[in-house]
Amino acid sequence: MSIAGEMEVMAKKAKDASRAMAAASGAAKDAFLAAAAGLLTTRADEILAANATDIAKARAAGMDAPRLDRLTLTPAVMESMAAACHEIISLPDPVGAIEALRPRPNGLLVGRMRVPLGVICMVYESRPNVTIDAAILCLKAGNAVILKGGSEALASNMALAGLLREALAAAGLPEDAAQLVPVADRAAVAALCKLDELIDVMIPRGGEGLIRAVVSQATMPVLKHYKGVCHAYVDAGADEARAEAVVVNAKAQRPGVCNALECLLVHAAAAPTFLPRVGAALVRAGVTMRACPRALPLLGEGATPAAPEDFGQEFHDLILAVKVVDSMDEALTHIHRYGSNHTEVILTEDHGRAMDFLRRADASMVGINCSTRFNDGGELGLGAEIGISTSKLHSYGPMGLVELTSAKFVVLGQGQVRG
Amino acid sequence: MSIAGEMEVMAKKAKDASRAMAAASGAAKDAFLAAAAGLLTTRADEILAANATDIAKARAAGMDAPRLDRLTLTPAVMESMAAACHEIISLPDPVGAIEALRPRPNGLLVGRMRVPLGVICMVYESRPNVTIDAAILCLKAGNAVILKGGSEALASNMALAGLLREALAAAGLPEDAAQLVPVADRAAVAALCKLDELIDVMIPRGGEGLIRAVVSQATMPVLKHYKGVCHAYVDAGADEARAEAVVVNAKAQRPGVCNALECLLVHAAAAPTFLPRVGAALVRAGVTMRACPRALPLLGEGATPAAPEDFGQEFHDLILAVKVVDSMDEALTHIHRYGSNHTEVILTEDHGRAMDFLRRADASMVGINCSTRFNDGGELGLGAEIGISTSKLHSYGPMGLVELTSAKFVVLGQGQVRG
Repeated sequence: MSIAGEMEVMAKKAKDASRAMAAASGAAKDAFLAAAAGLLTTRADEILAANATDIAKARAAGMDAPRLDRLTLTPAVMESMAAACHEIISLPDPVGAIEALRPRPNGLLVGRMRVPLGVICMVYESRPNVTIDAAILCLKAGNAVILKGGSEALASNMALAGLLREALAAAGLPEDAAQLVPVADRAAVAALCKLDELIDVMIPRGGEGLIRAVVSQATMPVLKHYKGVCHAYVDAGADEARAEAVVVNAKAQRPGVCNALECLLVHAAAAPTFLPRVGAALVRAGVTMRACPRALPLLGEGATPAAPEDFGQEFHDLILAVKVVDSMDEALTHIHRYGSNHTEVILTEDHGRAMDFLRRADASMVGINCSTRFNDGGELGLGAEIGISTSKLHSYGPMGLVELTSAKFVVLGQGQVRG
Repeated sequence: MSIAGEMEVMAKKAKDASRAMAAASGAAKDAFLAAAAGLLTTRADEILAANATDIAKARAAGMDAPRLDRLTLTPAVMESMAAACHEIISLPDPVGAIEALRPRPNGLLVGRMRVPLGVICMVYESRPNVTIDAAILCLKAGNAVILKGGSEALASNMALAGLLREALAAAGLPEDAAQLVPVADRAAVAALCKLDELIDVMIPRGGEGLIRAVVSQATMPVLKHYKGVCHAYVDAGADEARAEAVVVNAKAQRPGVCNALECLLVHAAAAPTFLPRVGAALVRAGVTMRACPRALPLLGEGATPAAPEDFGQEFHDLILAVKVVDSMDEALTHIHRYGSNHTEVILTEDHGRAMDFLRRADASMVGINCSTRFNDGGELGLGAEIGISTSKLHSYGPMGLVELTSAKFVVLGQGQVRG
């Protein structure tokens, strides 16, 4: 059979399985999660052996150290996957809840019931633990999931998907609710992208190239974010000690992630006092700065002149772009031009400007007097997340269990007809 | 300039205008709507003259009568557009509302603020009144809108879009928040579909061919529905008088619309008494039936044998497919196979089966003991709608003002950093 034919068969099985998953009780789904956690512990050796074959192949092919590191499963990673299963057991089942059931003038009761999305297709790269972390969220939300991991992790992913299917069967749920694409072929992704009658949504996770490839080919909705170019704007009259702590935390606590700070904007009135102190604090945290001509002389030794491309850059590193602006309007114009709709924060003591920034900054999280690092499902109270959406359709921001569902209208009548 | 270049310039202007629209007060947006309503009245002659040139051209080109009818603006249609503006003034502004602002353990207040989607591109066919009806909803929800109507309505649409821009300027809002594609060229749609960094969502309205063309080319989310194949399942023990009234209303009140009934499923235990009476009532309402072999002898003269393709068919006419089933499970299996995720209803007096159907039927509206015709923004309490989504991402069901917005996380802190 052709790859396209195989993918269609797989998607049809997923669609059938999604019916049973949508009707499954929370207890059955939690029994699946408990079984999966158990298997990840008792059968860890089997998974690690499969992973060892992937690693051996990757080494032989000359894979570099950071990618090898992402590919490697360890007993600690195995434990974290089992822990993730237990964490998701503790989250309430979102499916079946009815919101805002209210009477219409004709006596109909109208509300919205949370329903699963249906069939979710995850396309991802090296890290094999995504196979578990993504699948268990999709499944608890009542969906079926098709998993397409990186070719370099195929043996590991096959072993992990096998455990998921065993755990589904143990809980009386259909095995085909979790299926892994068993071939390392890009044609598989292209074929999946065409099946919009069977697959409800694509979720690509990985580099910008992978995501753009899925977006350009998909005929169904895609949940994604390209990158996080996050800004902090320090307003005139901001509390400088607070602003310093926030800026250092946002940039230096974990510089490789998408909610780390990439660009600091400082009001001209605050710059003469704030930039020297924040510059020194950033240098102590190991950060180097790329500064506009007005900021440069105020920052000291840690700063060099910014090139135009330093603005709008996601450094993924201990590097920060810095610019002085004359007003909040100028800061917002800069953010609209260079931001990526991810996370924007203001440091201010002025209520009016705080409220104005909150309304006008165009990002999935807008914060007042807090670190950009809070744009995260756990920190915002959603529990585990499957990613952060920077497009505004369906979901904007971290996507947890509820964001992996939709809502249908339910209408409870007593024979009403339309007049 | 190439068409692609022109479309990019237009989309950039729309993106800029969308910033001002997002920050606009409800009062400014309502002033725009009032100005538009006024111009639609005072300048009706100008619009009708432009429409007359479209009609003359279409006649000369041999356009058929139903399409000519859809193309024609009358004083009554002009009044209905002005009335639509006033109706939308009466709806509350959705933008800026903050939902569920709640404290996290570290003292951060986390909530979600309603925000516009940004730039919406509407692609539609003959009816020029869509230019007004769609644009005013998008604009009140704080978006900018790009309008691409049918080539046969170009003069009418240009005149209507001109009024919208005049009304925007009168309210102090940017004219470029409403732009009409001024050329009758399919390449324009293809070019717009590629601008996912500037256009947030495509909303195609029209025939299935138009919608599929947009879905296959778009790189941004698409809000759409292909068709409405709506079912009613009459359970064993249903109240037959009530079921009869609902079935006749669902099929015959307005058979050409997407929430009209297309297929009646009747439990075998109800069939011997229910089918003869509903058959007679349907015949009185002018309906002909295409029946399965078990239903056929019970329906009388209005019924002929169903062909396989009669199931899953959207007749858009006074025709109804009828089938006898042995259980609710069989009805749900039929609905999953032939339904279009639009509207499904059950007629039953049994609480358990009612709740089970409510959970398991996979459609944007699921009803108990009510007509399928209630799947409509006005009837469900949303106010005016821009269409009914049958995909589950972003919105599932009628899309009103709120569905033309998204929600961003807002985080109110006092200097919190992440530990």
